[in-house]
Amino acid sequence: MKYTVLGTGAVGGYYGARLQKSGLDVDFLARSDYSVIKERGLRIDSCQGDFVLDRVNVYSSAEELPPTDVILVSLKTTANDKLAELLRPVVKKGTVILILQNGLGMEEEVSDLFPEAVVLGGMCFICSQKKGDGYIVHLDKGSISAAPLREEDRDLLMKIQDDFQKAGVEMTLLDDLKTARWNKLLWNIPYNGLSVVLDADTAQIMKSPHGYNLAKTLMEEVIRGGEACGCSFPEGSVDTMLEYTRIMTPYEPSMKLDFDRGRRMELEYMYRRPLKAAAERGVSLPHIAMLADQLAFREEKN
Amino acid sequence: MKYTVLGTGAVGGYYGARLQKSGLDVDFLARSDYSVIKERGLRIDSCQGDFVLDRVNVYSSAEELPPTDVILVSLKTTANDKLAELLRPVVKKGTVILILQNGLGMEEEVSDLFPEAVVLGGMCFICSQKKGDGYIVHLDKGSISAAPLREEDRDLLMKIQDDFQKAGVEMTLLDDLKTARWNKLLWNIPYNGLSVVLDADTAQIMKSPHGYNLAKTLMEEVIRGGEACGCSFPEGSVDTMLEYTRIMTPYEPSMKLDFDRGRRMELEYMYRRPLKAAAERGVSLPHIAMLADQLAFREEKN
Repeated sequence: MKYTVLGTGAVGGYYGARLQKSGLDVDFLARSDYSVIKERGLRIDSCQGDFVLDRVNVYSSAEELPPTDVILVSLKTTANDKLAELLRPVVKKGTVILILQNGLGMEEEVSDLFPEAVVLGGMCFICSQKKGDGYIVHLDKGSISAAPLREEDRDLLMKIQDDFQKAGVEMTLLDDLKTARWNKLLWNIPYNGLSVVLDADTAQIMKSPHGYNLAKTLMEEVIRGGEACGCSFPEGSVDTMLEYTRIMTPYEPSMKLDFDRGRRMELEYMYRRPLKAAAERGVSLPHIAMLADQLAFREEKN
Repeated sequence: MKYTVLGTGAVGGYYGARLQKSGLDVDFLARSDYSVIKERGLRIDSCQGDFVLDRVNVYSSAEELPPTDVILVSLKTTANDKLAELLRPVVKKGTVILILQNGLGMEEEVSDLFPEAVVLGGMCFICSQKKGDGYIVHLDKGSISAAPLREEDRDLLMKIQDDFQKAGVEMTLLDDLKTARWNKLLWNIPYNGLSVVLDADTAQIMKSPHGYNLAKTLMEEVIRGGEACGCSFPEGSVDTMLEYTRIMTPYEPSMKLDFDRGRRMELEYMYRRPLKAAAERGVSLPHIAMLADQLAFREEKN
């Protein structure tokens, strides 16, 4: 299968480069660093071994992209207002769209726009950064958990899983996409937002009893929201996630990096969509709503 | 009646100076600026006319304070862990203690400690700052709303009202101290806390739809807390307070000034006591609790 990466950043650049390195045909869409990638290719400094791809099929506009089988959507969701426009020239009947973004509702939205496509969702557990034009540093982890939006597309996802595994990327298939998305929110909602509002990394949040309490309260609300939407969480999910974060290496979530650099934050898909999904089922999530308002205020003022 | 001011800062220094200027006998307790006040007196730059008191009866320890009739407590509540110690040498049977602090529960606490005293509460609506040692700038407003903790002490409060009015300070007597305290919290809880967490003044909060919504949500919770404690608020209190703040001169609440200068914030009496009072009546105030945790986190980290 042939792959196309929409968004050649820390996530898409890394996974796309791995796939190409394993021998697959990959096209990349890039914007700001198009000409550097065109000239010099992609440089990946990885904790699993550095490598350089001297020649890369890179394009600066979606109209120029050749036909493809699988599209990896690895743009930030802040760019999703332009996603339909980017997908339209490349999506044909049966094209696979694997959404590698954070938040809720992206797959449903893309599927509504392109009912002829096969839509899959992937949660990336990776610590990587774009350090410069065409230059990505992969620091830690790297696995993907994935599920199809529609169960009948699981076979196709298994083929993709095979490609990723051969490329050295661990991909776990999950039963239910919605539950997987809410499970990722269990971490993303508290730590992304609190890191901005409290100006703190995960370790600072967790070592303070007040930070710990805020994270816990927000997680309990994520569970309530997820359950309202029909998901179920294993007993002790909140405690497990708190403990996982308490012992992990101090980390500045991506939203804090975005905020500190004056970029837009992923508020729509990470906060407003979950709030809306719960509200439609009659469940209000007051702490998450308050955090979302605080973040929107900080973004406006930034 | 003879007056003693505990805490010769922006509030106590100003009101004490006004009382002395009107001819009354006033003693002042001062700490850091004791020697400057001893030597040069008090300088008040006031929007109602500047004045200087060349000679001031100032003391550096409570043990040295002469007997008195009325004690004005104008320390920040962050010093209330030392208040009993400061009051003990001066409080006799029938001594009046007028608490000019922000928050909830100070009068009850002082009355429990000194059941022989007459305890009154005053809400100061004043914009004043301590600009230097023995130097206070009074920028705007200046009135006090007051009520006795026990209704039988209203006559004494009326005598004090008379003294303040003669000194040029407008004092309004209110029916119920608890309701008056909660009414002041209606402004203090949202704007003090949000100004710190959002790093914004009142105008910035109010011109943003997100800031406005946060202030409104917090006010609605203050009302719920107050009502749980048996207070009633006039119809439209929240809208009136929002509108009052929207049109007022941009203002940095005292908690923001404290935070920015690395000083402790008045979290105990302004947030925790109201939360506790409501919780004891079975009412949880989740937004206020979340804001209190955020503030405590910021204070720890500061």
